[in-house]
Amino acid sequence: MNPVEVLSKKIFSQDKMQKVNLFETENLFCDIYCLLPGQSQKPHRHHGADKIYYVFEGQGAFQIGEEERVLGPGMILLAPSDVEHGVRNTSGKALSLLVVMAPNPNKI
Amino acid sequence: MNPVEVLSKKIFSQDKMQKVNLFETENLFCDIYCLLPGQSQKPHRHHGADKIYYVFEGQGAFQIGEEERVLGPGMILLAPSDVEHGVRNTSGKALSLLVVMAPNPNKI
Repeated sequence: MNPVEVLSKKIFSQDKMQKVNLFETENLFCDIYCLLPGQSQKPHRHHGADKIYYVFEGQGAFQIGEEERVLGPGMILLAPSDVEHGVRNTSGKALSLLVVMAPNPNKI
Repeated sequence: MNPVEVLSKKIFSQDKMQKVNLFETENLFCDIYCLLPGQSQKPHRHHGADKIYYVFEGQGAFQIGEEERVLGPGMILLAPSDVEHGVRNTSGKALSLLVVMAPNPNKI
């Protein structure tokens, strides 16, 4: 068994958003994304893979398609396959996200 | 965009564990599982699909393969394809879990 205390895995860097992998299989990856104020994951899209974002702490401006919304702790959202998506930390504090992607683009 | 305040979707029933779907695609489903004290998801396995459990609140005894561990809020774990897994609420309070499965067995 491989239980992980998620927030103990957080890593932040002044350089850029940090991604910390928790689990990876052919079917999915599960990461924490850690964004300091001002950091972002630029809008992009994946063909054939869906992504879920869950906000642990902080606040992010999430873009899915043409829409953008600021979401905080306890919110979850889906970025479907082929739809442009990204997130920016527009707040003044750290942003920590759970991110699950299926299937795993690194293993397709 | 489809953001959801996860814990606002909780439903408990004296009958049995409740599963509330948040998102569903061919690649994944994302549910909340809601277990009152004494309720469980019996050990079972899925061929070709991996499951992630994340504990929002409460405490559960998770079985993955032959091992069982009691885990609380903030813990995440992977039940890999073909490995027997289940969860029991052995505590005295409600247990709420985020569950992601990939691919979606309902759509294979």
